[in-house]
Amino acid sequence: MDSDFLLSTETAKVLYHNYASAVPIIDYHCHISPEEIAHDRRFENITQVWLGGDHYKWRFMRSCGVEERLITGDASDHDKFIAWATVLGRAIGNPLYHWSHLELQRYFDFDKPLCAATAEEAWEHCNKILNDPSMSARNIIKKSNVDVICTTDDPVDDLHFHEQIAADPTFDVTVLPAWRPDLAMYIEKPDYVAYIDRLSEVSGVSINSFASLIAALKVRMEYFAARGCKVSDHGMAYVYYEPAPSGVIESIFAKRLKRMPLSPHEEAQFKTAFMLEMGRCYHRLGWAMQLHFGVKRDNNTRMFNAIGANTGFDCTDNCSSAAQLADFLNALDATNELPKTILYSLNPTDNLFIGTIIGCFQEGPTVGKIQQGSAWWFNDHKNGMREQMLSLASQGNLSGFLGMLTDSRSFLSYTRHEYFRRILCDLIGTLVENGEFPADTELLGSIVQDISYYNAKKYFGF
Amino acid sequence: MDSDFLLSTETAKVLYHNYASAVPIIDYHCHISPEEIAHDRRFENITQVWLGGDHYKWRFMRSCGVEERLITGDASDHDKFIAWATVLGRAIGNPLYHWSHLELQRYFDFDKPLCAATAEEAWEHCNKILNDPSMSARNIIKKSNVDVICTTDDPVDDLHFHEQIAADPTFDVTVLPAWRPDLAMYIEKPDYVAYIDRLSEVSGVSINSFASLIAALKVRMEYFAARGCKVSDHGMAYVYYEPAPSGVIESIFAKRLKRMPLSPHEEAQFKTAFMLEMGRCYHRLGWAMQLHFGVKRDNNTRMFNAIGANTGFDCTDNCSSAAQLADFLNALDATNELPKTILYSLNPTDNLFIGTIIGCFQEGPTVGKIQQGSAWWFNDHKNGMREQMLSLASQGNLSGFLGMLTDSRSFLSYTRHEYFRRILCDLIGTLVENGEFPADTELLGSIVQDISYYNAKKYFGF
Amino acid sequence: MDSDFLLSTETAKVLYHNYASAVPIIDYHCHISPEEIAHDRRFENITQVWLGGDHYKWRFMRSCGVEERLITGDASDHDKFIAWATVLGRAIGNPLYHWSHLELQRYFDFDKPLCAATAEEAWEHCNKILNDPSMSARNIIKKSNVDVICTTDDPVDDLHFHEQIAADPTFDVTVLPAWRPDLAMYIEKPDYVAYIDRLSEVSGVSINSFASLIAALKVRMEYFAARGCKVSDHGMAYVYYEPAPSGVIESIFAKRLKRMPLSPHEEAQFKTAFMLEMGRCYHRLGWAMQLHFGVKRDNNTRMFNAIGANTGFDCTDNCSSAAQLADFLNALDATNELPKTILYSLNPTDNLFIGTIIGCFQEGPTVGKIQQGSAWWFNDHKNGMREQMLSLASQGNLSGFLGMLTDSRSFLSYTRHEYFRRILCDLIGTLVENGEFPADTELLGSIVQDISYYNAKKYFGF
Repeated sequence: MDSDFLLSTETAKVLYHNYASAVPIIDYHCHISPEEIAHDRRFENITQVWLGGDHYKWRFMRSCGVEERLITGDASDHDKFIAWATVLGRAIGNPLYHWSHLELQRYFDFDKPLCAATAEEAWEHCNKILNDPSMSARNIIKKSNVDVICTTDDPVDDLHFHEQIAADPTFDVTVLPAWRPDLAMYIEKPDYVAYIDRLSEVSGVSINSFASLIAALKVRMEYFAARGCKVSDHGMAYVYYEPAPSGVIESIFAKRLKRMPLSPHEEAQFKTAFMLEMGRCYHRLGWAMQLHFGVKRDNNTRMFNAIGANTGFDCTDNCSSAAQLADFLNALDATNELPKTILYSLNPTDNLFIGTIIGCFQEGPTVGKIQQGSAWWFNDHKNGMREQMLSLASQGNLSGFLGMLTDSRSFLSYTRHEYFRRILCDLIGTLVENGEFPADTELLGSIVQDISYYNAKKYFGF
Repeated sequence: MDSDFLLSTETAKVLYHNYASAVPIIDYHCHISPEEIAHDRRFENITQVWLGGDHYKWRFMRSCGVEERLITGDASDHDKFIAWATVLGRAIGNPLYHWSHLELQRYFDFDKPLCAATAEEAWEHCNKILNDPSMSARNIIKKSNVDVICTTDDPVDDLHFHEQIAADPTFDVTVLPAWRPDLAMYIEKPDYVAYIDRLSEVSGVSINSFASLIAALKVRMEYFAARGCKVSDHGMAYVYYEPAPSGVIESIFAKRLKRMPLSPHEEAQFKTAFMLEMGRCYHRLGWAMQLHFGVKRDNNTRMFNAIGANTGFDCTDNCSSAAQLADFLNALDATNELPKTILYSLNPTDNLFIGTIIGCFQEGPTVGKIQQGSAWWFNDHKNGMREQMLSLASQGNLSGFLGMLTDSRSFLSYTRHEYFRRILCDLIGTLVENGEFPADTELLGSIVQDISYYNAKKYFGF
Repeated sequence: MDSDFLLSTETAKVLYHNYASAVPIIDYHCHISPEEIAHDRRFENITQVWLGGDHYKWRFMRSCGVEERLITGDASDHDKFIAWATVLGRAIGNPLYHWSHLELQRYFDFDKPLCAATAEEAWEHCNKILNDPSMSARNIIKKSNVDVICTTDDPVDDLHFHEQIAADPTFDVTVLPAWRPDLAMYIEKPDYVAYIDRLSEVSGVSINSFASLIAALKVRMEYFAARGCKVSDHGMAYVYYEPAPSGVIESIFAKRLKRMPLSPHEEAQFKTAFMLEMGRCYHRLGWAMQLHFGVKRDNNTRMFNAIGANTGFDCTDNCSSAAQLADFLNALDATNELPKTILYSLNPTDNLFIGTIIGCFQEGPTVGKIQQGSAWWFNDHKNGMREQMLSLASQGNLSGFLGMLTDSRSFLSYTRHEYFRRILCDLIGTLVENGEFPADTELLGSIVQDISYYNAKKYFGF
């Protein structure tokens, strides 16, 4: 993993070193904590920053037979790190190997392979560096050349950390909220009614109908917009399209408020109506709509009861419907209310239908108004990224692609932008050296910089 | 894109230059107009021949943010061409880049990359060449070394243009009709009953039952067969198999004639019965049955209302059922009435099940009686073709593959046969140079020529 | 196909020749006959051993237009071999080409490409070698360096051949039974009730309820366990999860015993209950549970009626449900009764969801407690294996992978372990030479040997 890591052609090297690496980062979708930025969090040790909440690493450790005590249990931070280093040493072909070593190299100047033999040395080395103020949350962000960060926020969230960061003249990275109203849509969740009560309270709108639910959310959207929000985000099993008259939707919502059970069909009808309302709002506000689908969460009930959500027990689902996705976008488009939209499926077999569906709703003057998002989560590796980009290029306009985002909970994940850019340059280099596109370095460099940075800047209006 | 374009090994170069490029073209499925061949159409400018009806290009322009005025609107032909050239210049990884430049090189001797900087020059250059009689429809066909063309025709179509072409001693390319009775099967379409009336009229059979519908179609099949038809074609969301007794089918058809609505289940039952009847007829006539599935059409209602069908708003569907496809073929095979069949799915994730299903119904003495068709539409590019051929080779007999067809509406698309043959030779060259098959040039050359030409000639009986 | 066949890098060559080829074979899932091992079967000619029951070869012959008489019909063994050799000569890209030539080289020292021109020579040559006692079933196994074989056995099977082999001091390969209770689960089969009667008889438990069905199977599991069984195996269209109360299951079973028809929903409920009971038993016994899904069998009714099952008329299905698979494993895990599990889908588009689902149920101290099985059946070729391993590596712990099994009915198939190991070493070599993992030969060698041999030895407890 030297300076030409993943750059297999001369063209790729030139494109990466002279173009891609020269532009800043826009991380338009992640899960880092605005509070930790506001307070400029410091980290005691490498386990805290690396293994504290990283369920990718936890899953890998479980796959290697490591016991839970050394993963999320009561073992010491030191012992957890040693356990992690030991299994990482054999993680051939897993993106964790690349992510981890890029982070060790870029943030810690640690160039050895991490494994059982080097684990103690790495532990000492990294912890010493973490003790330096240059490794605070804000300083990591600054040294990563980050321009814009969009966090992920609930409609009921107070955005005062965002306000605080924006008001602080000593930190010039733009940190914006992103609107994620999943809890207002997950009508099947046991605590849905409690959430609605909380939303009533925060919005000042008494929610007793679907119409008033939407009204309350609109109040909160204005609050988010005033604090710079330009992006929304939704998580869903698949993109629903089971339209129903508004009276039916009102009845479904009323049933749920009375804590009566809903059928799967009613759920899908409600979610369809909810998403149509949201889409129209986003169009009016000029926000982009991100749809993340193809996930089945919390599959291990025993572990969910023990350690909760987002702990490494999610999987890909295969129930997506191309037809419903197309019909949903069409329903918004029919009244000229389709917002800029970014589609991510966790299932790469959906790549082609996504690529062909976005082609049905493109419309100038926006370049790539409807986007296929970057390879996501379980696909966030060399093959996954290559497949997503090759599919996108084959079906549409790769040069208008919005490129990478970290989707991460960690401040060390900005190296994934480097990882992505290397893979992008390598893919383009290969096409050029195969004779499939002219070797016009300036043109290629501009395409690479657009995908790495400028496309996102223009698309979101940062 | 020089003479060795896409040929990455020495074996590939020898196979392409000495074998593949030496045999004529059989274009056994396309959408060009027999009228334009009969009248030997001429083209005023490059926009007319290139952008007039090419929804692939339109989609790409929309993806790049070009406004509709410059795509299908009232802008001048010149301005449309400039807009197209400008976006094409950045179309890295898109097959349009290769298709367009192959056409510019082969038909116009224009060797520069087409982009904003070269657009005006290309406009002048190509239009001058188009003014020459050597660029009439027939002359393009002749210079492309085409042996046989199968157009796509509706049962109610008059085939007098085919008769006229066949009777003309100055044009020795065989131009045959192909039978596409989609409108007789799409029972859900609003204008279905009007179509049935028209079919009654043309066939001379008064259609008042499912049995008489089939009788009317049989009359028309005889008419097509007498004019050389050897191929049928069907478009469908997926291959249906929901069998029902004939009384049920008659009731469904009777309901539809009375303009009553049908359930999706009834639709599927009707389509199953329809396809079983067609399959039996094809078997008796010795025709091949082409099934094109995995498409969802006309997804953008707003644009459909504005500019109609086949304008770039179709997508891949993901609702195919391997089980129903297998059961449908089995139902025809059970009575020894399964015709030669070619299966195309727009969804490449169907490749494997298609490959394994065709293996269940192969039967000598026909080589490859049941075929997986060439990579289709959204898959008609290097990766799509490679995947289709590798899948086919892994599951069955690549050497018996029928090879390429253009599926095109344009007279300039014959270069796609070149594109396919280069990719085929490259794939075979790579297998050989990897040591996966012996470097027996004569054997490899015969396989390449079979796939490029002779297999289709034998299979269809041209 | 020389000694470096499929080894495209120096690293791959070192790993294969110095590490992978040095360890024995554990064939933990196959269909060879314990009787033939017990009797040390001899073979009269190459057709008998090669074409006698190999439906892979039959399918290929049918794809090439060979008539059934020369495949499963009354043609002479000689003529069948010539027909096979003739079509094999053109089988570019098909794994049969590699499998067959590896077998010819390793067992017969026949190094020429088999084709029409060499067919007679090969026929003479191979038959002469087969006449030698060194080519008896046991001697083939011994010269293949096989340590352990698990056959596939029905609960009603008598295991006296296994006993006989175990008691024979002249043959030191471990030959164990594997438990495959499909016939007890396939409640929809016409002969289900007859099978239940037979199971009653063999087990000594009178089966008149679902509870007594399970009791009878438990008796037989003890019998299998006492003869060394450590692995179970199930074939299914997809992994079912439609839970129902035990009273419902009893009613369904009672209906079936009365020969009343069941709905698809009842079938799925029964199969869910059946599999949950089996899983719990396997957990208690320490057996591994193998689930093979994604198949649709016996698709050609005409040929099934003529020549029966397992004759080359099966296909991939595409009806798998990620959600039901996850929920099924969760139901067993919830009570701490999830056994070691190996998942195989015949549909490679399932690779990703399998990879992500196994990650939800891993648990120390077992390394890779839940496994994705090696590329299976229609995927048992270079691309299929590469895709399965790359997917597994991306999502989990490749170094803990159980590796290859033959799934074969032939004694000559052990070369598929060689084929797999070459592909494994090539894949790892490529990752290393691309700079994606350190070139630490000792570490890589240990990973390769673990996947080839030691992981299976530890996992199953052989």
